Amino acid sequence: MASMWGNSIKISIFGESHGMGVGVVIDGLPAGEKLDVEQLRFEMNRRAPGNDPTATPRKEADEPEICSGLLEGVTTGAPLCCVIENANVRSVDYERLSRLPRPGHADYTGAVRFGGWNDVRGGGHFSGRLTAPLTFAGAVCKQILARRGITIGGHILAIGTVYDHAFDPMRIYPERLESIRGHYFALLNAECEQQMRAVIAEAQEDGDSVGGIVEVAAVGVPAGIGTPMFGGVENVISSIVFGVPAVKGIEFGAGFNVARMRGSECNDPYTIEHDKVVTTQNNCGGILGGITTGMPIVLRAAIKPTPSIAQKQHTVDLREKRDALLTINGRHDPCIVPRALPAIEAAVALAIADMMSETGRL
Amino acid sequence: MASMWGNSIKISIFGESHGMGVGVVIDGLPAGEKLDVEQLRFEMNRRAPGNDPTATPRKEADEPEICSGLLEGVTTGAPLCCVIENANVRSVDYERLSRLPRPGHADYTGAVRFGGWNDVRGGGHFSGRLTAPLTFAGAVCKQILARRGITIGGHILAIGTVYDHAFDPMRIYPERLESIRGHYFALLNAECEQQMRAVIAEAQEDGDSVGGIVEVAAVGVPAGIGTPMFGGVENVISSIVFGVPAVKGIEFGAGFNVARMRGSECNDPYTIEHDKVVTTQNNCGGILGGITTGMPIVLRAAIKPTPSIAQKQHTVDLREKRDALLTINGRHDPCIVPRALPAIEAAVALAIADMMSETGRL
Amino acid sequence: MASMWGNSIKISIFGESHGMGVGVVIDGLPAGEKLDVEQLRFEMNRRAPGNDPTATPRKEADEPEICSGLLEGVTTGAPLCCVIENANVRSVDYERLSRLPRPGHADYTGAVRFGGWNDVRGGGHFSGRLTAPLTFAGAVCKQILARRGITIGGHILAIGTVYDHAFDPMRIYPERLESIRGHYFALLNAECEQQMRAVIAEAQEDGDSVGGIVEVAAVGVPAGIGTPMFGGVENVISSIVFGVPAVKGIEFGAGFNVARMRGSECNDPYTIEHDKVVTTQNNCGGILGGITTGMPIVLRAAIKPTPSIAQKQHTVDLREKRDALLTINGRHDPCIVPRALPAIEAAVALAIADMMSETGRL
Amino acid sequence: MASMWGNSIKISIFGESHGMGVGVVIDGLPAGEKLDVEQLRFEMNRRAPGNDPTATPRKEADEPEICSGLLEGVTTGAPLCCVIENANVRSVDYERLSRLPRPGHADYTGAVRFGGWNDVRGGGHFSGRLTAPLTFAGAVCKQILARRGITIGGHILAIGTVYDHAFDPMRIYPERLESIRGHYFALLNAECEQQMRAVIAEAQEDGDSVGGIVEVAAVGVPAGIGTPMFGGVENVISSIVFGVPAVKGIEFGAGFNVARMRGSECNDPYTIEHDKVVTTQNNCGGILGGITTGMPIVLRAAIKPTPSIAQKQHTVDLREKRDALLTINGRHDPCIVPRALPAIEAAVALAIADMMSETGRL
Repeated sequence: MASMWGNSIKISIFGESHGMGVGVVIDGLPAGEKLDVEQLRFEMNRRAPGNDPTATPRKEADEPEICSGLLEGVTTGAPLCCVIENANVRSVDYERLSRLPRPGHADYTGAVRFGGWNDVRGGGHFSGRLTAPLTFAGAVCKQILARRGITIGGHILAIGTVYDHAFDPMRIYPERLESIRGHYFALLNAECEQQMRAVIAEAQEDGDSVGGIVEVAAVGVPAGIGTPMFGGVENVISSIVFGVPAVKGIEFGAGFNVARMRGSECNDPYTIEHDKVVTTQNNCGGILGGITTGMPIVLRAAIKPTPSIAQKQHTVDLREKRDALLTINGRHDPCIVPRALPAIEAAVALAIADMMSETGRL
Repeated sequence: MASMWGNSIKISIFGESHGMGVGVVIDGLPAGEKLDVEQLRFEMNRRAPGNDPTATPRKEADEPEICSGLLEGVTTGAPLCCVIENANVRSVDYERLSRLPRPGHADYTGAVRFGGWNDVRGGGHFSGRLTAPLTFAGAVCKQILARRGITIGGHILAIGTVYDHAFDPMRIYPERLESIRGHYFALLNAECEQQMRAVIAEAQEDGDSVGGIVEVAAVGVPAGIGTPMFGGVENVISSIVFGVPAVKGIEFGAGFNVARMRGSECNDPYTIEHDKVVTTQNNCGGILGGITTGMPIVLRAAIKPTPSIAQKQHTVDLREKRDALLTINGRHDPCIVPRALPAIEAAVALAIADMMSETGRL
Repeated sequence: MASMWGNSIKISIFGESHGMGVGVVIDGLPAGEKLDVEQLRFEMNRRAPGNDPTATPRKEADEPEICSGLLEGVTTGAPLCCVIENANVRSVDYERLSRLPRPGHADYTGAVRFGGWNDVRGGGHFSGRLTAPLTFAGAVCKQILARRGITIGGHILAIGTVYDHAFDPMRIYPERLESIRGHYFALLNAECEQQMRAVIAEAQEDGDSVGGIVEVAAVGVPAGIGTPMFGGVENVISSIVFGVPAVKGIEFGAGFNVARMRGSECNDPYTIEHDKVVTTQNNCGGILGGITTGMPIVLRAAIKPTPSIAQKQHTVDLREKRDALLTINGRHDPCIVPRALPAIEAAVALAIADMMSETGRL
Repeated sequence: MASMWGNSIKISIFGESHGMGVGVVIDGLPAGEKLDVEQLRFEMNRRAPGNDPTATPRKEADEPEICSGLLEGVTTGAPLCCVIENANVRSVDYERLSRLPRPGHADYTGAVRFGGWNDVRGGGHFSGRLTAPLTFAGAVCKQILARRGITIGGHILAIGTVYDHAFDPMRIYPERLESIRGHYFALLNAECEQQMRAVIAEAQEDGDSVGGIVEVAAVGVPAGIGTPMFGGVENVISSIVFGVPAVKGIEFGAGFNVARMRGSECNDPYTIEHDKVVTTQNNCGGILGGITTGMPIVLRAAIKPTPSIAQKQHTVDLREKRDALLTINGRHDPCIVPRALPAIEAAVALAIADMMSETGRL
């Protein structure tokens, strides 16, 4: 595991926030897949910093350089490596961090794990910047899946206490997913944007940050994908989605709401529609026994507020083993949720591509 | 993947609900570990059917027979295989199921996945009965972890709309976890039991079922366990917990509540206590950047209501490709939550043992 | 790794020589495969002890009991578990072994690896008896592969200094492989049997044992199976074949002879035959760049002489840390080669089935 | 699998012979390991082309650029990525190759495997050039292992019919391994060099190539490394060594010679030396039951003659499906053996580091 993931389509992610760059090797891609580089750039750009007043002002082009596995724009079947340079690195912001771990970050746990040798500059390999190569790998998979009639997209369900409405899990259409994708605040109801921006602005003024929830769907996945027990769709998706920093929860279909349901309400009845077996509702989120039903796969992930805040925080001085106060001066996102969305979509795309490939469907 | 799981301590689960039995091979266990068979039986019994009026009357002794890997009660380092016989199999209940898939079960998805060759009797390999070997494997790990000062236990947080209070994530004590474990309704506040039983009884009278939420903690896990990105504690735990049928969501620490928090509230400040770095609150559930902080690991899993209900349900006749009505006559749990708890504890124990072993700490 | 193996079709082997039994879980088998139990028994019997005067007199029926994954003789897609009981266990033979490690066995290395907790009775989990479940799993794969036009079979190439001739790697026919399989001394030239038996008898008289070489072929494997670098056919086959105790070398095609060849001789020229690309010789053993050419896959494995011999041997007393003499009194094979052959065929069958499955060809 | 390898220390190799470059990600390295870059360059240089009249004149600096995982020369525990640029690419040499597969190369099998989309220029991802990142990764492991008292080194045992003498498997000393390493023709008996060069020169004059055998040893590996059955040292080493193109056989200890031995000769007796259990001979090559004995690990690998030769060869025109003649004009090694040696040493170093790490010994 660690920074490698996958069974049939595998990724190996490397890099640090303030090192030379970040990147990914994707192994096991089908050969003969034309990649639309503009589309890859588009997805990279959705996640890139510096594109919105609510995001960190750190400006990174996040131009993906493909080093291998592609010949005249078409996959060769060999590992595809992509490197994304770090351009705008200001390491001066983080000098004290090896002594004073930032609350909510991996500074302390990483130091214990790696005996203090971990690169703490900007969070090092634990940084949210590592979602750039993940987003790239997912964008590649999205294109391959699109050719099989599968679309993956999502929206911001909540920022702080401001909620948009959720997907109707029976009626999620590819065109809609594509159109939402075009907005930095990807919303079902665009009118929430103003309120969400207000919540973020307010937090920022207080030197604080806010969290949120994203909802992602995969439509067009055929029935019968996934394997029993530990190879189930929920297992595989969650095993990669928790690789996106700040995710603290995941739920599928009706999710935590199933707790208060009765079986007669929760069970999705079957019917025949256009000679095809479908369910008449979709509380299971398109997954039963870990295997796809053919209905939309729907999941939600909870994103914690950016741990980097401007307020003074209580921490410890690891060298002197005493309590200390910490003020973080760097550039930070008061709300990471809009930028987390493409990363989580990417994770879902990788999971579905991997499972499709495992069952010989890619 | 499929029914195998693990990196360093690995399990391979086999069997069907109405076949000869179910079982598990555990590979990679440390050698020299004395196993307390009575304690293993105790854990098996927590999960076994037939022990409470709210559970299915199917009576199974669930006696684990250890076939290998144990010599005079001590692990040898070789794979430990355990077989649990199916005694009380009444397959007549399920005869029509290959034609009429039960809503909420894996009958339909399993049939698509395996071309109609899957064993549908009692759900076959998708049955909740497969949590018996999982519970066994977890019980073995619990004993091994206990020797390293780690205790894993949990409680029922909710059944239907009846909520017990949650763990105080700063104050979870091994003795408390052990004492809760002794009750079929494992509760922090024992007074909830009556209300919960009432909710279940009511559903049962209606030929219906109810879901719930369990909360599990691991205390004593040292800081520095887990690996970055995809080998993080949340990734590893969720990759196995979703192997317990009916789980539709998982959250760690403050979980979905992080969405509405601000960073200043969500971040857990550090302090020095008895010369040790600790946090003064535990919203992260003992995990930062995928790596343990040394504080209690806390997670919640949502359990859907048992899909087997006595009420007539809409389904399809797969052979004749037409709508149909289904009445399920078998013996079922109106509420699976109390029996799911030891299975989820077991999954968590396996995940932690695996990660401890991976970092050479077992 | 350890006693689990495989990427797409996976096995988990358990058991000890003198425990309750041995067995295997096979996960990832295609569903809908009818298994011919008589054929499985036939393969088990080829490997079973007690069937020939040159083999150990330990008599084991080696009756495979299938516990899961099979319904009315057809695979369901769920893990198939098979248990083989140990009937004829005489543990008295091995009492001193935890103190006096047998040269050539894993007694000492196993004791170091597992801190002295390993089961040394009959070699425990390191015993050649563990090839029984391997042979079973391979026999299952052989039937599945046969349905795809693939036959795996082999012969004894050498016992001691007595050599049969090798396969002509251009002309290996399924019928021939099937007919050889029927003989305990599976030979291309049946006339070698007498000489080979004489060599074994002579060694036995001296309280000694002899080694040999087996040659195995897989015919009918389509071109294009395997993956580059570490997923190549040689990598995958060798990763499982060395799981058969006593194998100390493996070579593919011309093998070690390539060392003395020139490129002009070693390279296999291509031609078109019946509209198909074939090579006009087969020094590469059907594998180039780790990927199958469509020609027969040919490999040889070196089997060391059974380390259990009746002669007095020098060893050490591990408890008292001093030199010691050891006489082994148990029942042993003076030559394991004929019984190793079906195990190695099985390993090859598993490797090919796994790779076929990985590329969606099963 | 594919181009990823490893359980605890894992590598992901990417790149093509005539693309932008080649590289590797190494995941799971211990943190806090100082890397001596000069030593890494030295190992890279041993493998690099253009350094000897018997090697291809293609000149590549093979300067490894480390992109991640290293901070001030010390490993951080995060994935270490190294990229090696391709400088001297002359793709014109290979233009016809997608139509006319070169005998002995992976052109044809790769085309079948990847539907004709594979990069054939210089062999693409199948090229021997991919041993550059492998050699790098192994060189990193060699340094880490050296700190644990383990030395890995080897020599050319044979080129064509010219044989040097083999290691005395009881007497292999680190200093000797280090001194041999300094020579392009790494030999135990330096006097063989002239004869070997003559054999190569002769082949080259004929527009031909020659193969050979390398022998590699690992000394200082403690007893008890490796796991039973499929996690054995032979399994793990062979699973990576066959990733070096042109390897067609591998043997451990006495290897194929065990076939003609008797047990009384083959078994390595134990004795106590300096209070330590050792064997008095080492036919097992330091491995029993897949687990190390503490004696030197010794293995040999057969390297086929470079398939690229100047002579006209029979092949087929894949587009027109007819026989054809092929003359290869590129720059090639008449003998790859000296350059294969550091790659195989590297593979062995990775295998041992991985197994050491798996048992918590790194």
